[in-house]
Amino acid sequence: MEETNKIAALSNNIKKLSLVLFSGDFDKAIAAFTLASGAAAVGYEVNLFFTFWGLNIVKEKKGRRFLGKGILTKIFGFLMGGFKNLPLSKMNFGGFSKTAMNYLMKKENVATLPELIDAAIALKANFYACEMSMIILGLKKEDFIAPIKEVLSVASFLDYSKNGQTLFI
Amino acid sequence: MEETNKIAALSNNIKKLSLVLFSGDFDKAIAAFTLASGAAAVGYEVNLFFTFWGLNIVKEKKGRRFLGKGILTKIFGFLMGGFKNLPLSKMNFGGFSKTAMNYLMKKENVATLPELIDAAIALKANFYACEMSMIILGLKKEDFIAPIKEVLSVASFLDYSKNGQTLFI
Amino acid sequence: MEETNKIAALSNNIKKLSLVLFSGDFDKAIAAFTLASGAAAVGYEVNLFFTFWGLNIVKEKKGRRFLGKGILTKIFGFLMGGFKNLPLSKMNFGGFSKTAMNYLMKKENVATLPELIDAAIALKANFYACEMSMIILGLKKEDFIAPIKEVLSVASFLDYSKNGQTLFI
Repeated sequence: MEETNKIAALSNNIKKLSLVLFSGDFDKAIAAFTLASGAAAVGYEVNLFFTFWGLNIVKEKKGRRFLGKGILTKIFGFLMGGFKNLPLSKMNFGGFSKTAMNYLMKKENVATLPELIDAAIALKANFYACEMSMIILGLKKEDFIAPIKEVLSVASFLDYSKNGQTLFI
Repeated sequence: MEETNKIAALSNNIKKLSLVLFSGDFDKAIAAFTLASGAAAVGYEVNLFFTFWGLNIVKEKKGRRFLGKGILTKIFGFLMGGFKNLPLSKMNFGGFSKTAMNYLMKKENVATLPELIDAAIALKANFYACEMSMIILGLKKEDFIAPIKEVLSVASFLDYSKNGQTLFI
Repeated sequence: MEETNKIAALSNNIKKLSLVLFSGDFDKAIAAFTLASGAAAVGYEVNLFFTFWGLNIVKEKKGRRFLGKGILTKIFGFLMGGFKNLPLSKMNFGGFSKTAMNYLMKKENVATLPELIDAAIALKANFYACEMSMIILGLKKEDFIAPIKEVLSVASFLDYSKNGQTLFI
């Protein structure tokens, strides 16, 4: 029992939060970056792994300049849009809009998404992008609004996130 | 190797399941409370952290009495509705309804959502509510159908859920 | 500090990834099996727990032969469809279709879903099915395209997945 407490005490030193950001929904992005910046603020190592629609959260909107080669990649890139065009995960709540949610957050003095992303960057959260998704979408490291530390595979991410808490969002 | 086994044996003593309940979907709520009550039944410490739409699962439906101040907060509160109005995550499956799913669960003698929530409460699962979401939505501790142990921030939740399994639902 | 490093080194030996597959969305299924096969490829123990709509990913499409008893079970079974009928989680991206995504993956030489499932099976990932969901849907072990190692409850899954990384997808 004493030894258990010792182990518990020791493992308490491991403060690590890793998020797989699969979804590109606006509300989930807010939840993810609230978790990320909150954890980083209290000394956690934070690893963010952007994949699929989640790349959208940190992808710069390129206006009419399409990325990648091939018509489908271009269409996909266009549909994804970039971080200014994130949809809400709940469209069916009678048209309650992203604008309204943003307004409400501003009014109640809660950090907005760009502020939360900036906080996570300032607090040294690690941003990683999924290699496979980037190949499919024809994206490059320069196409992101946040500093991408590394473009990596699943295996590397699992290795980096080991022994901490890992969430799929 | 022997030491590894010792560590493994010791860490086996840590039985903790923590759920971040972000989604307010009916089917996901059933999955979450099946996990929660199942884990609590076999001696797990269970921590439930309700945030965003997930607050809906344990929020009392207030009829026409709107909560909070400000028109947008009222609209948001109205749209969220409460635990009797949870939508299904899959609306596109040809209109298969919540009523049908409830009927099916009753018929097969599987616990329904209110029964699962009651079980989780009876088995001493800890209910936590996200401070930020409550501020945005103008909710108070008394507005919930389940006993909220604490209104807390991300940092506290990560601390409580450390060294266990944490899922984002 | 030295002891902490020892613990960290020891716990590094535990390589375990467990996925709760709740969603039956095509894109989430690809993400899940990319994680599963990638982890298995580098020596992780991989546990896949199929529940609710996630059963769809490994359920054989039965054409017009309906499973289970009772009309609602039959309707539910019909709506679920099977692994050839998985929807995309984002329907609102201007009709970007599953066919297009499949084409893009083929073109960029990225593994398709059936290939990823085959890889996970070949690399000895463990497939588990949720007992409760199977009862509701009237499914049997033989109804799946992948080898189901065990039909189990929440408690058993939590036990198998302990001390690793567990994601809810």
